[in-house]
Amino acid sequence: MSLIVQKYGGTSVGEIPRIQNVARRVARYRAEGHDVVVVVSAMSGETDRLLGLAQKVTDLPDEREVDVLLATGEQVTIALLAMALIADGVPARSMTGYQVRIQTDSAHTKARIAEIDTQGIRRSLAEGKVVIIAGFQGVDPDGNITTLGRGGSDTSAVAVAAALRADVCEIYTDVDGVYTTDPNICEKARKLERISYEEMLELASVGAKVLQIRSVEFAKKYQVPVHVRSSFSDVEGTWVVEEDEKMEQVVVSGVAYDRNEAKVTVRGVPDRPGIAGKIFGSLADKNIVVDMIVQDVGEGERASMTFTVPKADLKRALAVIEPVAEELGATEVFADPGIAKVSIVGVGMRSHAGVAARMFQILAREGINVLMISTSEIKVSCVIQDKYTELAVRALHDAFGLSKAEGAA
Amino acid sequence: MSLIVQKYGGTSVGEIPRIQNVARRVARYRAEGHDVVVVVSAMSGETDRLLGLAQKVTDLPDEREVDVLLATGEQVTIALLAMALIADGVPARSMTGYQVRIQTDSAHTKARIAEIDTQGIRRSLAEGKVVIIAGFQGVDPDGNITTLGRGGSDTSAVAVAAALRADVCEIYTDVDGVYTTDPNICEKARKLERISYEEMLELASVGAKVLQIRSVEFAKKYQVPVHVRSSFSDVEGTWVVEEDEKMEQVVVSGVAYDRNEAKVTVRGVPDRPGIAGKIFGSLADKNIVVDMIVQDVGEGERASMTFTVPKADLKRALAVIEPVAEELGATEVFADPGIAKVSIVGVGMRSHAGVAARMFQILAREGINVLMISTSEIKVSCVIQDKYTELAVRALHDAFGLSKAEGAA
Repeated sequence: MSLIVQKYGGTSVGEIPRIQNVARRVARYRAEGHDVVVVVSAMSGETDRLLGLAQKVTDLPDEREVDVLLATGEQVTIALLAMALIADGVPARSMTGYQVRIQTDSAHTKARIAEIDTQGIRRSLAEGKVVIIAGFQGVDPDGNITTLGRGGSDTSAVAVAAALRADVCEIYTDVDGVYTTDPNICEKARKLERISYEEMLELASVGAKVLQIRSVEFAKKYQVPVHVRSSFSDVEGTWVVEEDEKMEQVVVSGVAYDRNEAKVTVRGVPDRPGIAGKIFGSLADKNIVVDMIVQDVGEGERASMTFTVPKADLKRALAVIEPVAEELGATEVFADPGIAKVSIVGVGMRSHAGVAARMFQILAREGINVLMISTSEIKVSCVIQDKYTELAVRALHDAFGLSKAEGAA
Repeated sequence: MSLIVQKYGGTSVGEIPRIQNVARRVARYRAEGHDVVVVVSAMSGETDRLLGLAQKVTDLPDEREVDVLLATGEQVTIALLAMALIADGVPARSMTGYQVRIQTDSAHTKARIAEIDTQGIRRSLAEGKVVIIAGFQGVDPDGNITTLGRGGSDTSAVAVAAALRADVCEIYTDVDGVYTTDPNICEKARKLERISYEEMLELASVGAKVLQIRSVEFAKKYQVPVHVRSSFSDVEGTWVVEEDEKMEQVVVSGVAYDRNEAKVTVRGVPDRPGIAGKIFGSLADKNIVVDMIVQDVGEGERASMTFTVPKADLKRALAVIEPVAEELGATEVFADPGIAKVSIVGVGMRSHAGVAARMFQILAREGINVLMISTSEIKVSCVIQDKYTELAVRALHDAFGLSKAEGAA
């Protein structure tokens, strides 16, 4: 008998028959003798519907109240799923974040979990009940309702699993696991049986959207085995676990891409200390996240600074940068939204040299120009022209041997 | 400067522009220097939408979970109204029943308020904030979410006003006050300036739907002045207050009717002790509420028992009664859904004799046969054939002088 935490996302509970489906799956686990805690998201579309109401009230709704509003989405799901289980004869009990006491900080709309009180959950489990918890939400020290930001239900589930020392945290989603790359643009993409926390973190940070990045950080920190799988089948998915020796033999585990960034170049800035601080400080003040930065010294004593920002923030970023550039005496500010970031990720890079060089060669062979480069211990990212994205992903996937049953560089 | 509790029902907050309207009204009161606590219902249609989801899951949803589900309706409204106020520059703070700690018993879907913690409300008022409270919901001693039953937001508002010792509880609705009778069937109906708690209680119990009956009980018990008025205009509405001498001079304050009952007659039951207990005990066991009961001794030692039940429960009532009647040796069970109850209400009846007789005469003059009669100290109700309802209401309204500016018998 195990203690299992299961998380079902919005599409898995998007309609009543799907909720009944989830109830049947949970009932099966219970019948096998397991203790089950379920964490659910809002029904798909519900969060957007609620945000739409807020937007009709005001362009810039108060964030405390946004959280009060959005928290209703998950509350509806827990009630409906509990009803479905009870109607099937399975004792169940729903709990909001407030009722569990999922303690968070007070950063409304993007709160971080501080602590989870497991008393109430354990009491209901001891009574033989399935416990159904509203994901994505918590309560701050003053009793205000908070939410964790988009995808926060993954984090809720892993945090609950960590607090309960559960045997596994199963993340049910609409795909059946983590793939070597996006199957939509590379038909040779292969489902991974296992992947390390660190690789999953890097993949999540470069555009693979299977798991929310903070949930992986949580899982890594508390060593929670995570099983990503489909709610529409019984097929084994992908286990996200601690790195082991076998994983290290694989140089590249996955190829990811991100089309949501834009490139900004500021040309002809004076090449002296404090310039970068001025430019990026002004962006940080406006909460604009800068991803990659490249500085190259060009003409004389003038340098050029290139960086990427989320496409959605490009307009705001330019409005911030242009006056700063003028003040610094820069010659030109130049934006390019037509770019993409392609990344390779693998813990094996630590022990294998020349992986980045190999990536550049593969791209060059396809005639793809690399505009920017960024690397970490287990990742190499290249910014290229957007139109080459699919070509680059397929070429890297093939060349790093990911299409075979046993990947090898 | 006063402390005002305002309650807005579902139609008053049914759409975003109406919520913005409410925000402007609240802002005006604040600008006049008053402290304002607002209690809101779910947006109109929302409770039914949520119940529809539950019904899709199962015919008989678990009541604890129904409350978790329904409580989201009011939570959406408090968030949206708080956003609207804050966007207009008025500091505001929403609170769920859980956050206020509106303590109730554990009778899910029909809980009763036991106590209201005013600390949090007072703290926010002291900070200069408008406090917006979710009506209809509370929390039981074990921390479960409860709801108060349909129309419960009125009760929430009056209870909050009582707990805060507010100067007035304003109930905003889609009519502009309490009328001498339903203006839809009697065009001479007149809005009452004032009405006593007791008269309001009787009117609510005989079909006038302006205020939920428990909210009036609460107002009477804690002497909360209630002002029923329209959210679509600034016209003074009707004050529901403690009875005074002037009110006693008016014999009849209002004429109400109820078309939601059906009549059941059990003929030829033995005329001996214990029979009524058997019949009505079996109905009570099934939670069927019996309103009027008439027993008349007819043929020899056999009696006939006539009573009314809600039309919606008629089928269930007959299913309960028929086997009991057979067991008792009754000769016939006979149902008539084609009835209506017409009532006159007024505190002046206490000091005026012959009011009931007068009512029968007025009905007789119109050729209307009285099928059942029931009286209280300040009310007389007659069951008549449904088709005569409008005629009866208009005749009584005229004959008791309600159409005049100063009503007199």
